[in-house]
Amino acid sequence: MIQTKFQSCIEACLNCIALCNQCAVACLNEKDVAHLKKCIQLNLECVAICQAAANVLSLDGKFSKEICKLCIEICNACADECEAHANMGMEHCKECAEACRKCAQACEEMIKAA
Amino acid sequence: MIQTKFQSCIEACLNCIALCNQCAVACLNEKDVAHLKKCIQLNLECVAICQAAANVLSLDGKFSKEICKLCIEICNACADECEAHANMGMEHCKECAEACRKCAQACEEMIKAA
Amino acid sequence: MIQTKFQSCIEACLNCIALCNQCAVACLNEKDVAHLKKCIQLNLECVAICQAAANVLSLDGKFSKEICKLCIEICNACADECEAHANMGMEHCKECAEACRKCAQACEEMIKAA
Amino acid sequence: MIQTKFQSCIEACLNCIALCNQCAVACLNEKDVAHLKKCIQLNLECVAICQAAANVLSLDGKFSKEICKLCIEICNACADECEAHANMGMEHCKECAEACRKCAQACEEMIKAA
Repeated sequence: MIQTKFQSCIEACLNCIALCNQCAVACLNEKDVAHLKKCIQLNLECVAICQAAANVLSLDGKFSKEICKLCIEICNACADECEAHANMGMEHCKECAEACRKCAQACEEMIKAA
Repeated sequence: MIQTKFQSCIEACLNCIALCNQCAVACLNEKDVAHLKKCIQLNLECVAICQAAANVLSLDGKFSKEICKLCIEICNACADECEAHANMGMEHCKECAEACRKCAQACEEMIKAA
Repeated sequence: MIQTKFQSCIEACLNCIALCNQCAVACLNEKDVAHLKKCIQLNLECVAICQAAANVLSLDGKFSKEICKLCIEICNACADECEAHANMGMEHCKECAEACRKCAQACEEMIKAA
Repeated sequence: MIQTKFQSCIEACLNCIALCNQCAVACLNEKDVAHLKKCIQLNLECVAICQAAANVLSLDGKFSKEICKLCIEICNACADECEAHANMGMEHCKECAEACRKCAQACEEMIKAA
């Protein structure tokens, strides 16, 4: 890998995108989807911002730190919401929350290191 | 249109994506591509952030203002770079710079109105 | 505009992205969200494919026709689903279906012209 | 992981996005960027299509197979181009070609299994 400096952060963002998309679709297929609409909306917003972060970092962009700061905020907001449902037996929310927290942490480390 | 409040901002972001992609490819096909590499890199970063902004706004996301703030920064950075080349006869840079400035302005207005 | 040949198709794809995202979020906020889950899922898939189409076209990509063919399929599938709900008074589905049909038609024209 | 069936394919697509973006920027910073413009353009097109594939698969979309078929084509086209430069000492092209081939293979396997 060439630009190893951001690699773990890029990977954490990409993993978060996949888990958020999967959580959104799994939520849609839950019986009580009405209670999960905030979760789905945050999942989709998280996908949008993590996708920008992964692209900006892999392009070695000028605003890498700024997009990572925003990524931390949305990832933690999404994780907060997911964790509430994770405690109610929704495995997809549990896995999504973990991916979001890991992504937020990877972004924190990227900002410190940059 | 339902969410008319952000509509002109979303459209400005989407237009900016198209013009930045087109500018990047047109730059690649210029003879003196070596002088345009900073322009191409900013074009691509601008696409990534405008794409996030358009998605977050159309999802009526929690971080709409924050992503628009970042969008203003990258759009102005990209426009600054493009304008330098626009003065040297590159039509794609001129058009791209205009789309970036319009997008930055639409984001400013969105932030004030939100 | 430089690459006018694909311009109207790019614009139709970008418009479709915005309307599909907005339809997804509006569906999530409907009382009977359980009946709209297929619609939401198609909306999101349509966003993903239209985004690729808009990017590939604006990059003047090698697989422009192929991505447009796939775009026609997802846009028509999404429009079919939205139209069912449009008839039941959901304005966001009506607008989304229109954007999807226009996008499918613009892709058809692009394929013929290319 | 919930939807384990597509997981390795999603991961291969996401990895390919990161490596293609990095290859594009590394190419831009090579001395002889003029010889690499086809490579950069294919890199960017590959990012666009892999991003759609990763999103459609993680949304468990209706057109998962179709987007994967297109993903195989662009990944192999990008790998062919990158391999030519990889033999001339460009490490980023070598790594990118490998990621593209792995992604194409993962898409082949996904199509067979689906």
